[in-house]
Amino acid sequence: MRALRRQPVDRTPVWLMRQAGRYLPEYRQVREQAGDFMALCRNPELAATVTLQPLERFDLDAAILFSDILTVPDAMGLGLYFETGEGPRFRHPVRDAHAIDALPIPDPHQDLGYVMDAVAACRSALAGRVPLIGFSGSPWTLATYMVEGGSSKNFSVCKAMLYDQPQAAHRLLAKLAETVIAYLQGQIEAGAQALMIFDTWGGVLDPIRYREFSLAYMERIVSGLRATEQGRETPITLFTKGGGDWLPWIAETGCDAVGVDWTTPLDRARAAVNDRVALQGNLDPCVLHAQPAVIRTEVDRCLREYGNGSGHIFNLGHGIHPDIPPDHVQAMVQAVHELSPPYHDVPARTATP
Amino acid sequence: MRALRRQPVDRTPVWLMRQAGRYLPEYRQVREQAGDFMALCRNPELAATVTLQPLERFDLDAAILFSDILTVPDAMGLGLYFETGEGPRFRHPVRDAHAIDALPIPDPHQDLGYVMDAVAACRSALAGRVPLIGFSGSPWTLATYMVEGGSSKNFSVCKAMLYDQPQAAHRLLAKLAETVIAYLQGQIEAGAQALMIFDTWGGVLDPIRYREFSLAYMERIVSGLRATEQGRETPITLFTKGGGDWLPWIAETGCDAVGVDWTTPLDRARAAVNDRVALQGNLDPCVLHAQPAVIRTEVDRCLREYGNGSGHIFNLGHGIHPDIPPDHVQAMVQAVHELSPPYHDVPARTATP
Repeated sequence: MRALRRQPVDRTPVWLMRQAGRYLPEYRQVREQAGDFMALCRNPELAATVTLQPLERFDLDAAILFSDILTVPDAMGLGLYFETGEGPRFRHPVRDAHAIDALPIPDPHQDLGYVMDAVAACRSALAGRVPLIGFSGSPWTLATYMVEGGSSKNFSVCKAMLYDQPQAAHRLLAKLAETVIAYLQGQIEAGAQALMIFDTWGGVLDPIRYREFSLAYMERIVSGLRATEQGRETPITLFTKGGGDWLPWIAETGCDAVGVDWTTPLDRARAAVNDRVALQGNLDPCVLHAQPAVIRTEVDRCLREYGNGSGHIFNLGHGIHPDIPPDHVQAMVQAVHELSPPYHDVPARTATP
Repeated sequence: MRALRRQPVDRTPVWLMRQAGRYLPEYRQVREQAGDFMALCRNPELAATVTLQPLERFDLDAAILFSDILTVPDAMGLGLYFETGEGPRFRHPVRDAHAIDALPIPDPHQDLGYVMDAVAACRSALAGRVPLIGFSGSPWTLATYMVEGGSSKNFSVCKAMLYDQPQAAHRLLAKLAETVIAYLQGQIEAGAQALMIFDTWGGVLDPIRYREFSLAYMERIVSGLRATEQGRETPITLFTKGGGDWLPWIAETGCDAVGVDWTTPLDRARAAVNDRVALQGNLDPCVLHAQPAVIRTEVDRCLREYGNGSGHIFNLGHGIHPDIPPDHVQAMVQAVHELSPPYHDVPARTATP
């Protein structure tokens, strides 16, 4: 929490995107018990169990709610299901103004109560051990799945909507922003202590479209959350995968931290945001396939690239892969613990006004 | 050809990556006649037929050889095949030093003679109408398929090789660079008038790994080709998809032109390469799904972003999608013709020494 606010810390904190997941045998066991992925998300006790699993193994500095970004469009009535080998699909994709106008704005307590219950269960199980991060997909990223009807390679249908029906796209994104504000506000009330917005597919847009259709709506969410006292005090991290060129714009949204993928070195990222926000990242998830000695070298490089002072939250540049050996994660966490303290022996740089 | 050399032109030339392809009904007809995709590549007359098809429909300024980057690993004995819905696969992936050392360096005439014949057939059929572009995949991009055994989502296996067996990876890439030099030299001799190297997967690397394992080998190819008189006179375009941050490095390889995807605006790209090379790109292929009026607006933006003077080859930022209506391509080509002349009324900027 201190690192998110760029306050002095003794060592660089560390967690992993998708740290509760398939690479852990104990996760696979609970998931089998639950039946399927969404059943696991819908069961607050089991969701809390898997949320805490990585903390039992590794000395991590945060827990992130076990859930999925697609709970939101599912609650809007799109009918989420998973096809083996195909990833998530929606029974009712949204492709025109009529369908968009008919979409309800889900109530977080009535329509997504299971997520709120999972947040509360996680917070209670954590008992103050580490902070709990709540999350949502960005409006644009959610819209890609809603318009395409699932995962996409080229994003042809949803991008064509931006070009041919920009007003309809804006109405969809505005509705999603409103939904996400209420959803994240609900997560704060249920116990989330920090928030992250995943803009997994912002990087497939050109810069003009990115600002207009993705960034603007993340900014709206940040402003919306800042409008309440609890929201004002909850750190928010925005992460656009492939958004390295746009870090200065992202840092201007009013967020507290920005996620960085491995294609942008942290020294360059830090200069781009001019130390106005904390940075999260940015080890290539593929490094965890390498031997522990290589992992240590790459952790060292990552810490060195960020440099001295607070404001760095160590993480991967994307979610952990399902086939990573858990002891490689152990090697990464240990390396962050052992190698980061020297970077915090010096006074933190003050933020440029 | 003049634009590639940044010499004055009357209007911005235009062609499309994958312009001979599935979006054209006449292509689908020939492909059916050939049997399968590789049979079409292996038949010089049919390859020439489909290479020229887009020129019959659209007033394009270049033809690009109809072929595939995976002809090279196929000629190295990996056993290329196509699985429906799965994309290209190799029967014998290459995953260790032993397999790498056993790889032969294919002779372009003996082992890839069908490609040389296709180049000659295309050049002859073109009869000087427009120049013919030959091409190859970059060593790194070819290596990803060879190590993974086909397409990949995360590139886990080939990236793990970079970390855990860097010397083996370097031996593989050196062999591929040597192969590609001979392959492209053969294409020049057979009639190719310009060359393009597709580094489709360079952008999945971090900057350090990109320079060491992808860019260095493209540079080696450029130098190798420059060592012969014919090679010295043949313009070479390098294209790393997702390489927007690395344009200054790419421009330093000695290439003549650099491909740019749609995530980097051309004004920014032009400043990054300091007008030392020509730029090719960079309309988002998804724009061609939009209505013709939108296509025209986006072509206009692209031309305006490049600005005045020669050195711009209009293209998409990636290959055309198979479901684009041909009349949308017509709208794009026409817009480039109609809107670009004013940008060439002024004297070309001289390159900064």
